[in-house]
Amino acid sequence: MKLTLSLFLAVAAYAQAPIRGFSEAGLAKQRALEAQLLALPDPARVEAHMKAMASEPHHAGSPASRKVAEYALKEFRSAGLEAKIETFEALLPYPKERALSLGKFKARLSEPNFAEDPDSTDKNQLPTYNAYSADGDITAPLVYVNYGVPEDYEYLKKQGIDVRGKIVIARYGQSWRGVKPKVAAENGAVACLIYSDPKEDGYFRGDVYPAGAYRCEYGVQRGSVMDMSLYVGDPLSPGFASEPGGQKRLSLKEAKTLMSIPVMPISYGDAKPLLESLGGPTAPEGWRGALPITYKLGPGTASAHLKLTHDWGTRPVHNVIATIRGSVYPDEWVLYGNHHDAWVNGANDPISGASAVLETARAFGELVKKGWRPQRTIVFALWDAEEFGLVGSTEWVEKHLPELKEKAVAYFNSDSNGKGVLGLGATPALNLFLEQVARDVKDPATGESVLSLMLKVQKPFQPGPLGSGSDYVGFVHHGGIAGVNFGFSSAVSGGGGVYHSIFDSFAWYKRFSDGEFVYGKALSQVAALSLVRMSEAPIVPFEFTRAAATITQYWTEVEKLAVDRKVTLPDLRPNLERLTAAAKQFEVDYAGAKGGAREVYLTERALLLPDGLPGRPWYKGSVSAPGQYTGYGAKTIAGVRESLELNQTSQALEQTKVFGAVLDRYAAAIVTAGQRLPR
Amino acid sequence: MKLTLSLFLAVAAYAQAPIRGFSEAGLAKQRALEAQLLALPDPARVEAHMKAMASEPHHAGSPASRKVAEYALKEFRSAGLEAKIETFEALLPYPKERALSLGKFKARLSEPNFAEDPDSTDKNQLPTYNAYSADGDITAPLVYVNYGVPEDYEYLKKQGIDVRGKIVIARYGQSWRGVKPKVAAENGAVACLIYSDPKEDGYFRGDVYPAGAYRCEYGVQRGSVMDMSLYVGDPLSPGFASEPGGQKRLSLKEAKTLMSIPVMPISYGDAKPLLESLGGPTAPEGWRGALPITYKLGPGTASAHLKLTHDWGTRPVHNVIATIRGSVYPDEWVLYGNHHDAWVNGANDPISGASAVLETARAFGELVKKGWRPQRTIVFALWDAEEFGLVGSTEWVEKHLPELKEKAVAYFNSDSNGKGVLGLGATPALNLFLEQVARDVKDPATGESVLSLMLKVQKPFQPGPLGSGSDYVGFVHHGGIAGVNFGFSSAVSGGGGVYHSIFDSFAWYKRFSDGEFVYGKALSQVAALSLVRMSEAPIVPFEFTRAAATITQYWTEVEKLAVDRKVTLPDLRPNLERLTAAAKQFEVDYAGAKGGAREVYLTERALLLPDGLPGRPWYKGSVSAPGQYTGYGAKTIAGVRESLELNQTSQALEQTKVFGAVLDRYAAAIVTAGQRLPR
Repeated sequence: MKLTLSLFLAVAAYAQAPIRGFSEAGLAKQRALEAQLLALPDPARVEAHMKAMASEPHHAGSPASRKVAEYALKEFRSAGLEAKIETFEALLPYPKERALSLGKFKARLSEPNFAEDPDSTDKNQLPTYNAYSADGDITAPLVYVNYGVPEDYEYLKKQGIDVRGKIVIARYGQSWRGVKPKVAAENGAVACLIYSDPKEDGYFRGDVYPAGAYRCEYGVQRGSVMDMSLYVGDPLSPGFASEPGGQKRLSLKEAKTLMSIPVMPISYGDAKPLLESLGGPTAPEGWRGALPITYKLGPGTASAHLKLTHDWGTRPVHNVIATIRGSVYPDEWVLYGNHHDAWVNGANDPISGASAVLETARAFGELVKKGWRPQRTIVFALWDAEEFGLVGSTEWVEKHLPELKEKAVAYFNSDSNGKGVLGLGATPALNLFLEQVARDVKDPATGESVLSLMLKVQKPFQPGPLGSGSDYVGFVHHGGIAGVNFGFSSAVSGGGGVYHSIFDSFAWYKRFSDGEFVYGKALSQVAALSLVRMSEAPIVPFEFTRAAATITQYWTEVEKLAVDRKVTLPDLRPNLERLTAAAKQFEVDYAGAKGGAREVYLTERALLLPDGLPGRPWYKGSVSAPGQYTGYGAKTIAGVRESLELNQTSQALEQTKVFGAVLDRYAAAIVTAGQRLPR
Repeated sequence: MKLTLSLFLAVAAYAQAPIRGFSEAGLAKQRALEAQLLALPDPARVEAHMKAMASEPHHAGSPASRKVAEYALKEFRSAGLEAKIETFEALLPYPKERALSLGKFKARLSEPNFAEDPDSTDKNQLPTYNAYSADGDITAPLVYVNYGVPEDYEYLKKQGIDVRGKIVIARYGQSWRGVKPKVAAENGAVACLIYSDPKEDGYFRGDVYPAGAYRCEYGVQRGSVMDMSLYVGDPLSPGFASEPGGQKRLSLKEAKTLMSIPVMPISYGDAKPLLESLGGPTAPEGWRGALPITYKLGPGTASAHLKLTHDWGTRPVHNVIATIRGSVYPDEWVLYGNHHDAWVNGANDPISGASAVLETARAFGELVKKGWRPQRTIVFALWDAEEFGLVGSTEWVEKHLPELKEKAVAYFNSDSNGKGVLGLGATPALNLFLEQVARDVKDPATGESVLSLMLKVQKPFQPGPLGSGSDYVGFVHHGGIAGVNFGFSSAVSGGGGVYHSIFDSFAWYKRFSDGEFVYGKALSQVAALSLVRMSEAPIVPFEFTRAAATITQYWTEVEKLAVDRKVTLPDLRPNLERLTAAAKQFEVDYAGAKGGAREVYLTERALLLPDGLPGRPWYKGSVSAPGQYTGYGAKTIAGVRESLELNQTSQALEQTKVFGAVLDRYAAAIVTAGQRLPR
């Protein structure tokens, strides 16, 4: 009796819970539509997509990648969507020669075959390498540089250890891999090895593959070392689309995002003899990994020899784009994308997410087949060459930038999807919207709402700022489009143990991640609910009081940093108060409004920095950006924050003024949007 | 000019700096005496003593131990001191059978020979074992228990892992080794293995022996697992001296400090296959050591087999006692001791300290030969069988207890001595005295005062409370005698990497510790200055305002613990205020006094608990005691603190009353001592 009552109350609460952008009168119809959509995603279909797309190594530029794109094209079409492949052309170098030795020791540089995992023997695997590494043939002593972040080099200097002319060996972790050789080169190193220490994702964490989920002795993390802090996408076409036959592209020498020194990723099996050979002081405790050796700073008595050449090939990049044209506002676009290219088979990264995109599209397609049409246009995208440097999505954004700046309401992104808690990064104006989406999707393991699990990890609800690492970058940081990145994950299902290795396979995923594909279904539901609310809401469901609070919080952190650095910044509190007042006024206007879209979503464009960030004009986001020395990690209010971090005081003062003006433009845009909401 | 002036000022400051217990008028004579003494200790002689005493394995009860005692006897005598050997008899079991296996794996249970270290091949080594382990022949599954402290078992229970009937494997560290099998047995385990994880003192810390100072793959930490929380000394003669031919001794069954289950220490070489065999959940991150394995909680599918028998022999214990009879106050004794027995050769533990005792005695002997005599009697002691459980010193204290209670002014202790900063534990009333000693001895490496280096590590100056782990225990915790423990150390010279192994050798010490023996000389200087001030000061140099402040600080910590445990203790602030007032009044009386000894040093006896600590009446110290579950680690105001920690509330309340009465007696004794100071 009690249970029945509480169930009734829960259902009643659900039915009555507000949905941002909808009036009370419109809720019932929307709820009915959502109920249909949420019922459609099917774990078996997600699994079938993974089996199809992750069956062969399908790195960008390869025939297998083209095959995956064609599979997706067929699936979108059979779901009833208009779909096409948009092809670009980009510099996607593959390795030619790879050798590493020290005395008699020759590094293996390849991953083992395991009978337990048939994909580990697949042919046409891209060898272990770092894309956009320089070519080189170098013999030099080794120095161990821990994670290879700037503070590590400061420590080495204090110990009197000079990395100039040396090959540095860094471990994966803490910073994005491309930052490691960049900082190494800035410090005068002539080459960089990056290895996976078992402390980070090997036996220290748990049993290694195939007994367990973690990285085995000769497992290697491939990956790009493009200097993504400057710009992303094809290195030869910064700021413009690189289309087949296009003439404008830069020469290799002109490209600024190619790594200046040779870089090679290695396994801990290959790293151990190198590290063991080092002399010099014992590394400080925080530098020591889980290899059974005494970690030393180096150098040793012997020199290592590294040889690397690449083919520097330009290759096709196939984005798959599927559209459901809006019936009322065809020129207002709601987008959802995920990449389809992988370093090898990529069951987890990215096919777990790409499969959810296909299943989300099918759900919408089922409604379309029954005659339904969204109010706004919905666009699905499966991007190519993300792994090389967000290439497919960036070229597409650059090609369509003027149209996107007008039409794009929001871009949703996913990538690898595991199981566990929903991870969220987002533009602050979508905070309330996303909380309501998470509230209305059920966690498959517990039956609780996805939101309630998230709140057990972090309270209050607040998606993180967007940095880098997946295809939202072009939309958000270059285009000024509201963005969201989502995916389920847990420690093991995060996939760290097989990340960018041949063992990121269907067999691994089935055993150690979302083997029942119920979180694949859940991701489809999260995406479907996001899209259908964004497409159907009479008022585009942005909300600015939380945005103002979030930005104020970011600014408070920057102010504290300034105090630490003994810098007095211009006072932006008045600007932030104006923003907060504008956000509150918008809520007053919103309460009486009947619709409103274009001016609401265009508020996000007001957050763009006209000249971009200092030294990297391609990045125009003022509220968050990937850090110059973190790589994927976001820096909030990066123009000011990074100037302070790099002790560039006058630039910090200048950037504060710039950001103050941004805040005022954002506030003004919000006020205008509120005033123009139809009543 | 400037330099000369500052040098002059420094010399002048030194000459004028007060010395507790001496009037201004007496300073010059005392300084002259001290200058003679400080000039005498000689590094070459310290080295020669080490070479002589650490040349053979000389564990307690062995003929070699007798030889070391005789060497010391001869040295004391040739220095001009009256000296004798006082022999006791104690249960000192040696191992007979030792075997450990798991499936095909048979543990090695012995340390390797290295050509670099001739002592590693010495014959008559005591095999690797834990003294006072039970005999047993046990086959059972293994469970990993981390450090084997109570919280570790709580964690295992939460994971549903039952240690009852299992052999537990714990790593050395965090708690004293004897606590590990005790807690294991309390939790139902049937045997306990203790291994040295390379994280604690092996390759994780630095190069292993013989390349470096740290523990090698098959290095083993021997050691006693006597339940020292109850009482120390011969397990068969608690509270009374075990003299040769004595009749009173307990039977093995009656002895309460023997370990109830078999315990075996093993190397990480032997531990690795055992730990690798474990199944069950991955151990939490804080439990993982530095072996190249995935640490799991267990159990595994296979059972381990452990066989241990001992000879349960009673053996002689030879203390060497040397005396310089006081010319004025022969019945006021100032004592300095160090043990001479080792687990194997023991260059560091204990010969580095024992050599300094001999050299300190020689320095005094030189003055005696010139006709000088101390005012008070000075006693030097080299104790035997410390390693088994502070046996020699404890039996001696128990034998001479009535006399010591009357005559002992203070007991100074050293043990292993390395290089670096002076470590100090002491009775709070000696705080000021010790600061002045440290102020007036020079650090050999820097030429700065020993005090100024100490203050770089910890400020303000405050010696730690005395726990256990060396021969001061009987004097301080049983006899209520003011005590000090001192020794120089640094990370490497602390000797952790060879602690209680065959590699604690002259070769190791020479390379990795105080190879020039200048800190051996410095320890002699610290000891000589301590003794000559304590023996010559007209007023015994105790000081109570710092003691009152220290005890108040300890009580404040206990009060905080009570708040955490939601226990309201009787208020001891009034008692502490009375103590503080008494200490201040003593300073007034002291300022006008001309002498005074007996009542001043007897104040320390007022701190004794008449009934001892709850459940362990042998321990009578109220201010500090070894913790029941820390072993060596001190617990301050242990009667109250440990009652709170064990949630025994009514006992905590009772012990607070008892401690309040102690404080009042101490205050009264201080007032009386002040009043009776001769003027």
